[in-house]
Amino acid sequence: MKKLKFFTALMFFMSISMPSFAETTVSAEVGFIFNTFLFLVCGFLVMFMAAGFAMLESGMVTSKSVSVICAKNIGLYSIAGIMFWLFGYNVAYGIPEGGFIGKFIPWSDGSKLETGYADGADWYFQMVFCATTISIVSGTLAERIKLWPFFLFAAILGGFLYPVVMGWQWGGGWLAARGFSDFAGSTLVHSTGGAAALAGALILGPRIGRFKKKGDPSPVKPFAASSIPLVTIGVFVLWLGWFGFNGGSQLAMGTFTDAVAVSKIFINTNLAACGGVMAAAVVTRLIGGKTDVVQMLNGAIGGLVAITAEPLMPTPLAAILIGAVGGMLVVFGTKLLFSLKIDDVVGAVPAHLFAGIWGTLAVPITNSAANFGTQLLGVISINVFVFIVSLIVWSIMKATMGIRLSREAEMKGTDVSETGVIAYAIRD
Amino acid sequence: MKKLKFFTALMFFMSISMPSFAETTVSAEVGFIFNTFLFLVCGFLVMFMAAGFAMLESGMVTSKSVSVICAKNIGLYSIAGIMFWLFGYNVAYGIPEGGFIGKFIPWSDGSKLETGYADGADWYFQMVFCATTISIVSGTLAERIKLWPFFLFAAILGGFLYPVVMGWQWGGGWLAARGFSDFAGSTLVHSTGGAAALAGALILGPRIGRFKKKGDPSPVKPFAASSIPLVTIGVFVLWLGWFGFNGGSQLAMGTFTDAVAVSKIFINTNLAACGGVMAAAVVTRLIGGKTDVVQMLNGAIGGLVAITAEPLMPTPLAAILIGAVGGMLVVFGTKLLFSLKIDDVVGAVPAHLFAGIWGTLAVPITNSAANFGTQLLGVISINVFVFIVSLIVWSIMKATMGIRLSREAEMKGTDVSETGVIAYAIRD
Amino acid sequence: MKKLKFFTALMFFMSISMPSFAETTVSAEVGFIFNTFLFLVCGFLVMFMAAGFAMLESGMVTSKSVSVICAKNIGLYSIAGIMFWLFGYNVAYGIPEGGFIGKFIPWSDGSKLETGYADGADWYFQMVFCATTISIVSGTLAERIKLWPFFLFAAILGGFLYPVVMGWQWGGGWLAARGFSDFAGSTLVHSTGGAAALAGALILGPRIGRFKKKGDPSPVKPFAASSIPLVTIGVFVLWLGWFGFNGGSQLAMGTFTDAVAVSKIFINTNLAACGGVMAAAVVTRLIGGKTDVVQMLNGAIGGLVAITAEPLMPTPLAAILIGAVGGMLVVFGTKLLFSLKIDDVVGAVPAHLFAGIWGTLAVPITNSAANFGTQLLGVISINVFVFIVSLIVWSIMKATMGIRLSREAEMKGTDVSETGVIAYAIRD
Repeated sequence: MKKLKFFTALMFFMSISMPSFAETTVSAEVGFIFNTFLFLVCGFLVMFMAAGFAMLESGMVTSKSVSVICAKNIGLYSIAGIMFWLFGYNVAYGIPEGGFIGKFIPWSDGSKLETGYADGADWYFQMVFCATTISIVSGTLAERIKLWPFFLFAAILGGFLYPVVMGWQWGGGWLAARGFSDFAGSTLVHSTGGAAALAGALILGPRIGRFKKKGDPSPVKPFAASSIPLVTIGVFVLWLGWFGFNGGSQLAMGTFTDAVAVSKIFINTNLAACGGVMAAAVVTRLIGGKTDVVQMLNGAIGGLVAITAEPLMPTPLAAILIGAVGGMLVVFGTKLLFSLKIDDVVGAVPAHLFAGIWGTLAVPITNSAANFGTQLLGVISINVFVFIVSLIVWSIMKATMGIRLSREAEMKGTDVSETGVIAYAIRD
Repeated sequence: MKKLKFFTALMFFMSISMPSFAETTVSAEVGFIFNTFLFLVCGFLVMFMAAGFAMLESGMVTSKSVSVICAKNIGLYSIAGIMFWLFGYNVAYGIPEGGFIGKFIPWSDGSKLETGYADGADWYFQMVFCATTISIVSGTLAERIKLWPFFLFAAILGGFLYPVVMGWQWGGGWLAARGFSDFAGSTLVHSTGGAAALAGALILGPRIGRFKKKGDPSPVKPFAASSIPLVTIGVFVLWLGWFGFNGGSQLAMGTFTDAVAVSKIFINTNLAACGGVMAAAVVTRLIGGKTDVVQMLNGAIGGLVAITAEPLMPTPLAAILIGAVGGMLVVFGTKLLFSLKIDDVVGAVPAHLFAGIWGTLAVPITNSAANFGTQLLGVISINVFVFIVSLIVWSIMKATMGIRLSREAEMKGTDVSETGVIAYAIRD
Repeated sequence: MKKLKFFTALMFFMSISMPSFAETTVSAEVGFIFNTFLFLVCGFLVMFMAAGFAMLESGMVTSKSVSVICAKNIGLYSIAGIMFWLFGYNVAYGIPEGGFIGKFIPWSDGSKLETGYADGADWYFQMVFCATTISIVSGTLAERIKLWPFFLFAAILGGFLYPVVMGWQWGGGWLAARGFSDFAGSTLVHSTGGAAALAGALILGPRIGRFKKKGDPSPVKPFAASSIPLVTIGVFVLWLGWFGFNGGSQLAMGTFTDAVAVSKIFINTNLAACGGVMAAAVVTRLIGGKTDVVQMLNGAIGGLVAITAEPLMPTPLAAILIGAVGGMLVVFGTKLLFSLKIDDVVGAVPAHLFAGIWGTLAVPITNSAANFGTQLLGVISINVFVFIVSLIVWSIMKATMGIRLSREAEMKGTDVSETGVIAYAIRD
């Protein structure tokens, strides 16, 4: 007996000095702390994405609708926190193995060493993903939606719709059981947000004067973005946050292997965004003669969304190309929506829905464990589910409380009618 | 002898594989690094709050006083760094046990493994708290105070007033000896800043034209906030920084217990802010008919300040409610100050002083180790001390160098008179 | 044999409980994770500096050239990522010992435990330094340079010029062999960027109307900064990022010694910026009567650049003074360039080139391992090399594709002519 223990102690010592990495030399508690630290650091980066969306959307809307966008963004992030505590977390993670839906009960902390990370750190990290999903919706519907109906939809999306979809995959539900692969949520987060936004845009209709009626002369710059530098900062903040979004989705930092993986994810995330920016720059320059800064900025988002489904396996070159396609999808997707007379104020549908579909379907190119059929199944099932349910919810809300501002309120600007606070009072 | 050692080695090995957490399995050096890392990461988040205050205040003042607010914020953060090195740290931490004041000597590094973290990391973390305290003051007094007298007050507050109060509790002074409980500084930081600001506002008086005199017709939008999106970004940055503010105040990340605690603190901090935002949204919607975005944003601050005294013990629900009360205090406190004709340009007194008092008094609700009487003692002694000393300092400065701009300079705007730099030159 | 192992196991156990720091008690894998974590966290802080530069420059240019500055900044950061993967990293690190230039091959991950950190984390950290170097150039040349020629120069600087210089020192090239000392790149990064910008400004010439011709009456505020709050946020973001810039340059966080060092670096970095801000405030107040907020903000940059060559060894007081000299160099350097009729739109040459030279030459004052002669050699060789090569590249580009906008395009504003997107559309 004694000899056995001695031998084990010896093995332990040797494993410290000569790690083989089949077995890690990091103690359970140290690993627990590293993993928790990763969740918290990556979590606050993703939390800051809420600010990034607020800036991007504030800059993209006309100056008469900026205060309301601010109210929507600070409000939706707050609603996400409350709803994800009240229902969301356990709707997603209380799902039976291979199942469809979890439990509608509040989250509470039950941290154990064996889990490998603090429960609360995981809740925090998952909550900010939930908030991101809702953020995607707010920009598309800007300048014509009523504030409180938007908040109600935010609560439904954050407390029910997103968590259900999240449970299907990350909670170990039926899609996970079939081998669907979506590392950090190209589909689960970004397409979900994009599909919900598209449904809203269809039910809500475009802003007054957005699209020419036959015979109408086109108005001059009718919906000019109020502040390009705000959009730019917003995109940089989102880009920064995305290191947390994808890097944290490794879910562990307590081994050599995990540390190397998180580093690779940072690089691929960055390079995909680079690809998206430069693709949009080249394409708009070649097509339109001018280099469209707004498309470059949205191209970064498109690239980031595209790499989110698989940020670990691609080579750097593959990451650049995956991102470049994402960036091009943003450019052409924006044109497509415009020609279909769908009014997506900030271009969230191309950037999050279209690039998200692309990124998810592209996983098998670099990850041999994924297969195209299952990816297609995941993309279709999630997008159709979210789109249909959103369509129903928006329609019910439209029929009951109403979701669109009066014509008069819209013409005055949402800031005056909804918050009574003018966004800019700048006199020089 | 040998057998004993063998047995100890065995115990050590077993503690690695089966940690009991009575005794941690993290080596002293690894724990030292984790703790230091926590201080540095949380410290840079709190440092960034200086930017958050700069944005919030820039957005809240009229466009004629923005450059000066920028100068004040970059200047006060610089003064905080210098003064906290020169005096502050040792005024606070050089205090005798149970005493009233420490030593007026500069800080120098004396890191030892036994302390559990790098001295410098602690200095950095404490310094950014000192800067936060001063930041609170700058907004309240905007648009009429002279720049350099403000800098002088900043030096006094950062080098003397805040460190004294800090020493009473965190330096192990007389309040700590009585069992006062203020985890991350609802009272020590936020009320201190708020009380110093209130004293300044009283001595300085309101901006010209801020309050109607009898018989005067009210001017139309006389002091419109120059940029609501700037205020919004500022609040998001402050919210982000608060994870560092409260999370870092656990002061340790090197054990299972600490990692779980920091995670809980992140969640409660977040949920309290959520509560503050939504409470302010609902209250302003019900009272005024419109959802006041400025109050939602300040409501976030109110919620964050309220949870700061005890971010660890509350349940998520309790955190939401504590924050919601904080948010409501901001709404009603703003009305109270207005009716008292006290001109607090950014609403710092309600958000930091009022919500700070509430948060500190609420500690015993969720932390049974605290008691209401001691909390009241701490709240009164610190606020009265800071308010009285500030009143004296402002009065002496007023009588000697003068603290208020000339009527002419104020009408022209502080930017022209103080920095000679116009804040915005936007032509579209 | 057995006895020996037992003894070793015993020693190991004792080293855990009583670390001597001659030998660290952190296992290789735990150290690897700490170091990698440091690179990633500091890396994302430096990445965010790209946003800081975008804001600072957006705020400093006139409102007719803001969209293009945004396009340049998001574009150059993307180009930096791609070029540093394609060539940069191996041009720098593939250099033979004591040599002049490395290999033009793409980077790929080869992480080993023995290296002490993940390869990818190092790539990421070095890449954001490369991006910073390019960022420095973009502001100086604003409002008159063509977009795509700027992108071409960015690619050359990021893929070749900066990596060559970087290899001379950090890749173990000839300057490192001579004992040159530049901790985080006062010369390698900041002077390199500043010298490339200065060369560009000379070839490009000043903006139309920037400098009075003889007999001309001076126009009223011809080139007013479009947004001082944007400049301010930008500087705060750069300041935040600099903790990563200098702190991460310790390159390790896995021992007591490294944790203490990173903490010291944070403090000195902060205090140097404080010194730069307050020196600029005092100097402009004494010289011009008004406290110039723009010089305070640029003074922070000057202080930060100055401490970058040696942020570890100075005492806090020395750091304040080194930074204060940096801040004063910005004030007087700006005047010097103006009198020489060199048009540096954002003041990057004084802040990065002049303060970088000062910081590098000041290293021997606090670090006895450095000597003035070698520092001078490094400063001269790098700056002359970068300046001459840049001058040649700019000249060739001017002679072939052209680098300057037409007079007509410049008068209309670069936003209209280059991106077709107006930066601000604010109506109140």
